[in-house]
Amino acid sequence: MVVPDKDLPFILRRENTARYEDGCVVLLDRRVYPLEIKFQRCDTPAAVARAISDMVTQGAGPAFAAGFAMAQAARTCKGLSIERSEDILSKAVLELSSARPTNKAPFRMAIRMKKIAISAIESGKDAETACLDHAEYVFDRYFERSKAVGRHAAEVIGQGDILTHCFAEAMLAEVLLSLGKGRRLIVSETRPYFQGARLTAKMALDLGIEVMIIPDSAMGSILLEHDVAALVTAADSVTLDGHVVNKIGTYLAALAAKASQVPYFVLCFGPDQNRAGKEDVEIEQRPENELLEISSRRIAASGASGYLPAFDVTPPELITAYITHRGVFEHPAALAAWGMGTAPRED
Amino acid sequence: MVVPDKDLPFILRRENTARYEDGCVVLLDRRVYPLEIKFQRCDTPAAVARAISDMVTQGAGPAFAAGFAMAQAARTCKGLSIERSEDILSKAVLELSSARPTNKAPFRMAIRMKKIAISAIESGKDAETACLDHAEYVFDRYFERSKAVGRHAAEVIGQGDILTHCFAEAMLAEVLLSLGKGRRLIVSETRPYFQGARLTAKMALDLGIEVMIIPDSAMGSILLEHDVAALVTAADSVTLDGHVVNKIGTYLAALAAKASQVPYFVLCFGPDQNRAGKEDVEIEQRPENELLEISSRRIAASGASGYLPAFDVTPPELITAYITHRGVFEHPAALAAWGMGTAPRED
Repeated sequence: MVVPDKDLPFILRRENTARYEDGCVVLLDRRVYPLEIKFQRCDTPAAVARAISDMVTQGAGPAFAAGFAMAQAARTCKGLSIERSEDILSKAVLELSSARPTNKAPFRMAIRMKKIAISAIESGKDAETACLDHAEYVFDRYFERSKAVGRHAAEVIGQGDILTHCFAEAMLAEVLLSLGKGRRLIVSETRPYFQGARLTAKMALDLGIEVMIIPDSAMGSILLEHDVAALVTAADSVTLDGHVVNKIGTYLAALAAKASQVPYFVLCFGPDQNRAGKEDVEIEQRPENELLEISSRRIAASGASGYLPAFDVTPPELITAYITHRGVFEHPAALAAWGMGTAPRED
Repeated sequence: MVVPDKDLPFILRRENTARYEDGCVVLLDRRVYPLEIKFQRCDTPAAVARAISDMVTQGAGPAFAAGFAMAQAARTCKGLSIERSEDILSKAVLELSSARPTNKAPFRMAIRMKKIAISAIESGKDAETACLDHAEYVFDRYFERSKAVGRHAAEVIGQGDILTHCFAEAMLAEVLLSLGKGRRLIVSETRPYFQGARLTAKMALDLGIEVMIIPDSAMGSILLEHDVAALVTAADSVTLDGHVVNKIGTYLAALAAKASQVPYFVLCFGPDQNRAGKEDVEIEQRPENELLEISSRRIAASGASGYLPAFDVTPPELITAYITHRGVFEHPAALAAWGMGTAPRED
């Protein structure tokens, strides 16, 4: 383990991101954390896919959950033919990759795990163990890369508070740690799931950082009136031409940052090589009740419909730079060169 | 009565905006309408001021509530000296005008009512009745002016859906009626009080108009991706140089409208003549629990603070035109001429 888990905020610890317990995938329920600490147990890849679709986990969670779900699938392949194993693993990949359409990390993880499992089976090794070993490797790499993102962020972010939207996970934690604890984090509550008010706020508080929560609608005036060093977000997808797909509201925040001449930095591990531009990204629509109800109680006039796109797309002209584990990229063309120049990504 | 109340959406009917029942001011509780229909009874001007401060009523409500509260004050002046009456009325003005600092309409109404009451007392008439008569006159004028705003809006708004933020009251209703029922209204939910999802949505549904609710954070992507004819909002204050003070989030919506080349029209009855620019506007800060709790249950990580400005300021360069009862003003300079050229406003 590269980073001792005890030093991490609770939500970032690997056992709380996703863990594997004797064939069962256990997920911290991010829909209620930290108001409640509740874990959901998933016995099959289909159950993991449903948990992803229901947003029990989100952000970096689904990729790790998908990895462990493939270990579940591999476990059921024991003693079966290679053809039958292929079928089982392919079915799991399909279930996991269709759970949510926009962020492709779970799909990439599932595909990679399938290859690892097949290769283990072919060479007479235990496929489940091979998948679990790879999951640990990806966890290690994830924390290493996040640390590198944090280091590079410190090279370009000036003085002042940091504004963020939704939950940028370990990358944001490393940025905050690199910048030092004197910074205040301003976080949008992030409707309708309040990931900002719950997950991001709690993560930063666990790090000893002061947190101020604002409504999403105040991201414009906070940028005008407060001393904000940078808007910093993660990305669910970065296209080869530099468009950033991230939680709905990111585009508004980016517009406001530009209007206030505050830099907007996107934290990511590089572009999605299979997505040339925004046309290649399907924006997930969530069920309207997730907007129109809170705790199963309707908050809106009956008779009105709800429209809840999970993500929006921010064009490269609103982005100051993409901060990655390989350094800071100001120009989408450099990102594209990275994306096109690599073999299939390994996460 | 200029507009028969029965033809109005429930929330716009004058008895539901604010009414006077034998010394008691009765207010529809806009914090829960239409999920619950509940009225709050206020026995004194101080109770009315508290109801305004607690946001039992908002939008156009506080001005009418303040008017009736002055009738309450006038009622208690019966048989008292002119000096004692002055004291009572002045105290009520002070209470009512400090309830919420940004929107000055309740203050103007209270000041006007005080003059009317004093003048009635001086000429031996019943001050309470004089105040109530004036309230009816202002109601009539309010609906007439709103109708004129609606007529002028139809001159400048093109084809497509209408996007609005928060609750623009009778003016928006008249705009929608002028445009015809084929338009869909897209309304932001408007955190943290959900005025959009509740009040605006219900008002439009009462008019037979299709309503689609979006999170505040989706105002940017909806403008990019849907056929939106115009962003249309009210204003809590318009300064003489054309800055628009309105519900937090309006500035973000205006930025997004500009970026998508969608016109932004501000509905108002003219500028605040005592406010030259945005420096003259105090932006009210609401208590953090109104952001961090829903139905008294915390939705945010404990240990984080909340920051909830009630309004933001949109600069004139983001505003296509100000639609008023006197016509459509494209240039803030024309607004300023209006503001400077009139005697103290009568509302």
